[in-house]
Amino acid sequence: MIDFSDPAALSGHTDAERRHDPAVRGFASDNYAGVHPEVLAAIALANGGHQVAYGEDDYTAHLQDVFRRHFGEKAEAYPVFNGTGANVVALQALLPRWGAVVAAESAHINVDEGGAPEKMGGIKLLTVPTPDGKLTPELIDQQAWGFGDEHRAQPLAVSITQSTELGTLYTVEEIRAIVEHAHQLGMLVHVDGSRLANAAASLGVPLRAFTTDVGVDVLSFGGTKNGLLFGECVVVLNPEKVRNIKFLRKTSMQLASKMRFVSVQFEALLTGDLYLRNAGHANAMAARLEAAVRGIDGVTVVRPVQANAVFAILPREVSEWLQKRYRFYFWNEHTGEVRWMCSFDTTEADIDAFAAAIAEEMGRV
Amino acid sequence: MIDFSDPAALSGHTDAERRHDPAVRGFASDNYAGVHPEVLAAIALANGGHQVAYGEDDYTAHLQDVFRRHFGEKAEAYPVFNGTGANVVALQALLPRWGAVVAAESAHINVDEGGAPEKMGGIKLLTVPTPDGKLTPELIDQQAWGFGDEHRAQPLAVSITQSTELGTLYTVEEIRAIVEHAHQLGMLVHVDGSRLANAAASLGVPLRAFTTDVGVDVLSFGGTKNGLLFGECVVVLNPEKVRNIKFLRKTSMQLASKMRFVSVQFEALLTGDLYLRNAGHANAMAARLEAAVRGIDGVTVVRPVQANAVFAILPREVSEWLQKRYRFYFWNEHTGEVRWMCSFDTTEADIDAFAAAIAEEMGRV
Amino acid sequence: MIDFSDPAALSGHTDAERRHDPAVRGFASDNYAGVHPEVLAAIALANGGHQVAYGEDDYTAHLQDVFRRHFGEKAEAYPVFNGTGANVVALQALLPRWGAVVAAESAHINVDEGGAPEKMGGIKLLTVPTPDGKLTPELIDQQAWGFGDEHRAQPLAVSITQSTELGTLYTVEEIRAIVEHAHQLGMLVHVDGSRLANAAASLGVPLRAFTTDVGVDVLSFGGTKNGLLFGECVVVLNPEKVRNIKFLRKTSMQLASKMRFVSVQFEALLTGDLYLRNAGHANAMAARLEAAVRGIDGVTVVRPVQANAVFAILPREVSEWLQKRYRFYFWNEHTGEVRWMCSFDTTEADIDAFAAAIAEEMGRV
Amino acid sequence: MIDFSDPAALSGHTDAERRHDPAVRGFASDNYAGVHPEVLAAIALANGGHQVAYGEDDYTAHLQDVFRRHFGEKAEAYPVFNGTGANVVALQALLPRWGAVVAAESAHINVDEGGAPEKMGGIKLLTVPTPDGKLTPELIDQQAWGFGDEHRAQPLAVSITQSTELGTLYTVEEIRAIVEHAHQLGMLVHVDGSRLANAAASLGVPLRAFTTDVGVDVLSFGGTKNGLLFGECVVVLNPEKVRNIKFLRKTSMQLASKMRFVSVQFEALLTGDLYLRNAGHANAMAARLEAAVRGIDGVTVVRPVQANAVFAILPREVSEWLQKRYRFYFWNEHTGEVRWMCSFDTTEADIDAFAAAIAEEMGRV
Repeated sequence: MIDFSDPAALSGHTDAERRHDPAVRGFASDNYAGVHPEVLAAIALANGGHQVAYGEDDYTAHLQDVFRRHFGEKAEAYPVFNGTGANVVALQALLPRWGAVVAAESAHINVDEGGAPEKMGGIKLLTVPTPDGKLTPELIDQQAWGFGDEHRAQPLAVSITQSTELGTLYTVEEIRAIVEHAHQLGMLVHVDGSRLANAAASLGVPLRAFTTDVGVDVLSFGGTKNGLLFGECVVVLNPEKVRNIKFLRKTSMQLASKMRFVSVQFEALLTGDLYLRNAGHANAMAARLEAAVRGIDGVTVVRPVQANAVFAILPREVSEWLQKRYRFYFWNEHTGEVRWMCSFDTTEADIDAFAAAIAEEMGRV
Repeated sequence: MIDFSDPAALSGHTDAERRHDPAVRGFASDNYAGVHPEVLAAIALANGGHQVAYGEDDYTAHLQDVFRRHFGEKAEAYPVFNGTGANVVALQALLPRWGAVVAAESAHINVDEGGAPEKMGGIKLLTVPTPDGKLTPELIDQQAWGFGDEHRAQPLAVSITQSTELGTLYTVEEIRAIVEHAHQLGMLVHVDGSRLANAAASLGVPLRAFTTDVGVDVLSFGGTKNGLLFGECVVVLNPEKVRNIKFLRKTSMQLASKMRFVSVQFEALLTGDLYLRNAGHANAMAARLEAAVRGIDGVTVVRPVQANAVFAILPREVSEWLQKRYRFYFWNEHTGEVRWMCSFDTTEADIDAFAAAIAEEMGRV
Repeated sequence: MIDFSDPAALSGHTDAERRHDPAVRGFASDNYAGVHPEVLAAIALANGGHQVAYGEDDYTAHLQDVFRRHFGEKAEAYPVFNGTGANVVALQALLPRWGAVVAAESAHINVDEGGAPEKMGGIKLLTVPTPDGKLTPELIDQQAWGFGDEHRAQPLAVSITQSTELGTLYTVEEIRAIVEHAHQLGMLVHVDGSRLANAAASLGVPLRAFTTDVGVDVLSFGGTKNGLLFGECVVVLNPEKVRNIKFLRKTSMQLASKMRFVSVQFEALLTGDLYLRNAGHANAMAARLEAAVRGIDGVTVVRPVQANAVFAILPREVSEWLQKRYRFYFWNEHTGEVRWMCSFDTTEADIDAFAAAIAEEMGRV
Repeated sequence: MIDFSDPAALSGHTDAERRHDPAVRGFASDNYAGVHPEVLAAIALANGGHQVAYGEDDYTAHLQDVFRRHFGEKAEAYPVFNGTGANVVALQALLPRWGAVVAAESAHINVDEGGAPEKMGGIKLLTVPTPDGKLTPELIDQQAWGFGDEHRAQPLAVSITQSTELGTLYTVEEIRAIVEHAHQLGMLVHVDGSRLANAAASLGVPLRAFTTDVGVDVLSFGGTKNGLLFGECVVVLNPEKVRNIKFLRKTSMQLASKMRFVSVQFEALLTGDLYLRNAGHANAMAARLEAAVRGIDGVTVVRPVQANAVFAILPREVSEWLQKRYRFYFWNEHTGEVRWMCSFDTTEADIDAFAAAIAEEMGRV
């Protein structure tokens, strides 16, 4: 008889085989990384015996406390499967059937979710081009008009990403200004925080400083990119206005049956400082990479490095040679801009070796 | 520096705490159970280093072979997060925008998915009352009409559940007859196989015998109820007719970024006989429970026990007393019917203790 | 220069040709009929010059008064194109994204709208078989449960049809009981009134007696079947609970640009007694038909004739012979039941000739 | 007994009252106008007696011939209620569930349909800013990428508007180039032709010259703005690729029951040259207006006048004074640009009086 309560059993027999080289790391995406060991240990801890399914377990109950410590007494945490799920659930809660959300053209909800907001939520996106992935009250005004006119999908929510898809950060004051502007217009505010921990680490302020304390209504709190196996959380900060997430989560196919295993991962992340350690480390690795390539002739870092991403332009052929050695993506095929992401498990040695490889390939030009 | 490749690290430090008693087990649902140790070991095995996200990893590539061994050379496996997700993705692939699916009134897609098929997929369900949760060609005909008439949502798919929500099983021949009938009518066939392994264990035939070999077009293959942490698979058996799952999976918010951890779980389940061991054990426990309660006066098992569920009627007060000791659900508030589910980790001792408790509480009447 | 204000111009030149024999009438549907001359005259009256589009015209403004006279001071009228549109708009207003509507299995929204409620509104239908097309509080209770449980699409609305698809009528008291029951459960009530005028004519009470006065929240008021060219109206009776129809109407593709021409038709129908004359006449013709066939051996009228429909069973071959002379539909292919509908333009001579034809064809058996 | 076949009955009694001054005309929209008398005469002609509902009538059958004469032997015509309905039905036919449509930012489907394409069709719009409302192959390429990548809603259709929302026209060759480009990319092409007749009149070529003959796949053919009471038509030009409109029309709540009255209006429009007379007249009135205001100091016509719209910039206060005398809209609140639309019933006297009013109000500055 197996002792289901013994985490040591984890290193035991399985019919699966290791199929990859754990030494390989690249710069393509922070979700190419695996699971942080403390998170995996937490999963093992929560295993064994029976717990009520679908979120009525003890870990999810405790998780409410965990999130309230970070986001204030009114916060409510609803674990979901992935970031697209978190965003689409949150936006449905902010918008009536005839609503639209104002977002940056570069927002993940606009460019990387396969149209899920439109297709699953019936949500129209009203997008604005931005220089740096960041909205401002003025940019929001480009789309926040036509209130009361039924010919226009009603712009009743704003969604911003922190840190942004372009590796940039909103300051606390910038988010405050957006929220105040939005609320004055009768719009609610969503933060896509798939990298919210990176923002906290970089800004050096608590998570609530740029969310709860500046009036954000709901956020998608990212776990996967910060070391979880899987899992994001819809965090309601304004429960008077943002309601019924539990129904929307189920209807949107985002209700995990064995939810204890999502919740305990967030507990591992947020009880101590693991979220900050992981994010801060990833940010530091990006800074190290930026510093390293700054000295390489012909490589230009083209965006501020404020979180865990470095965007650079270098000769296309060099990028292509490099891609044979390290996995990463072209961000813009036209300009040749590439994106290099660092993750919680990127090491200093990884950075140094990658920078050396860049320098080496540049030398071939 | 942590060695991310060392599964032993799993039993290491975490800020999370154990919050439950792993000794407690009940009979409410097979997803109250945790993760099978062999599955957790597989997850640890796949950890460390970088793997391409969103399914282009080595584990997901290998998973195709794993599924083809079970379901034939044409099978394609698309891991998703949960059962509702698997069902809604699969049904969207079977149906045009104007399509409808014929299902038993008791089908999970009809009664337990919060309307997700309708709300996310725009899919109309044409349901049929059944005595035992099983459709037949004749029952399908109650809804399979009006072809070509645009006033009627077009009944272009059939969905059956194997084993059913009522703990019953379709025989191989019964499924064959349904598929033949459906195909003759121009309808495609989906199997909701959230407990497909239980069916294989009970029928004593390979998985393909009652799916691929009788012409099923697509199935939702369940992992969670059979010992996974999370994860189901849309398995396409007829790729000529069932296409573009990859787009539908993404659009339906079911695309896992760190997919290697879903795939390796299925590898652990399906490479050897873990799926059969888990399912067979759960089935055997249900049989043991049935045998045990058959001798208790006043308790009537009201449905055939063909998989891992026992449905019984006993005095309501007895059920309520019992519920203070063991978690389980009323299936039908009106009749007082209760459902007892067994899972991969139910022990013989659990069954014997539960049966004793039933007898004891019956004695109080 | 054409005088656009001159209705006489109507009988003038057109490049279209008459392609049908206006003398032909059948019994297939009350929307096989054309437009009542008083309605066409109203359209001509509203023609010429410019009126603000999309409902800000003088006719639509006046229409509010017209509807308030019939349905009380709080009534709001929103003209739409057709009955499916009216129903789907109204139900969206009653239901959150996770809502479901309880309806009779025979309801038009369930069987004759191509799945539009599900596909366009994401609305789950929770249907109940009924003997006569009518719900009761007890029948509603078969589906009105699971409140607060996110696994169940929340049953937050009831939809009834008056007069029903089976030619039957709810009494005032029956609707009152349904509304009280629904409201006690926290559900709102919609009436599909595509034949509401027929109900008023048959019950001999004002329209408000069985809608506003018994607490109905919103209704689809039918015009097309009662002599309009096209046009239905979503009539809000409880504006505190049923809001934002204007946005839903537009989003649901039901906002007419030249709305004056919809509104003036309703003005023609409802200012005097045209709605009652038309409906009462159609009802009387159905009664005449019932009386006529009652004497024919082998023809059985199988449902109460309470509005403008007669449902009968007669030998299938006789029905098929008859169908060569008169257009009508089989209601139920299995039982051979046929439906004969009367409309505002059915004449006594039509009835007598049809009854004679039935008798004649019966004689051939 | 009323003679339902007598159009003269139209000028007879009605309980409705004339509530507007038919002499008033403005420049706000071409759907502020009423119905052309020849169209109203056609409606009267089709009245009386019974015709099969939902499109199986003799007028709709004949309409196929009418459209085939204009658009070629493969054309299929599906009458619907309004332009939004036509567009959403057509686009659903072009796109799988994961599809997106490339359109100009100024397209009606993007800015004036309340989000119906997203909300009812689940269609993502990929928009491109344009100087003149017109796409080009190069502009399409800004969004036509990412084929096969499930993270991107698949850009499988292009939608252009002819004549555009900005009063401009595509040449035959411009449309041919767009279609060729789109088809090479595997995309299908939709034309929003709510003012297609204006384009034909202005280009001086047959309707098919810039639709069928250059490979357009499907179009929304506008009737309402060209003198119909209501009614648009989805016209399939490529039935191999564009299928099942009949199901989509019903599901999208666009199936008229008394369809003969939609079809006969199109017959009146398209059998002779009424469509050209109406559109050509509206275009000529716009040209007359442009000529008249060109001489007024301080009024600048800011877009080419190629159809029935004039866009001008003049002092905001002048526009506001003018709006007290004539109804028209600001097109851009920021720049003060106004839009003046001419319709089939705009007279030369209307133009001259309006131009005089503009001059007069300009004189007050």
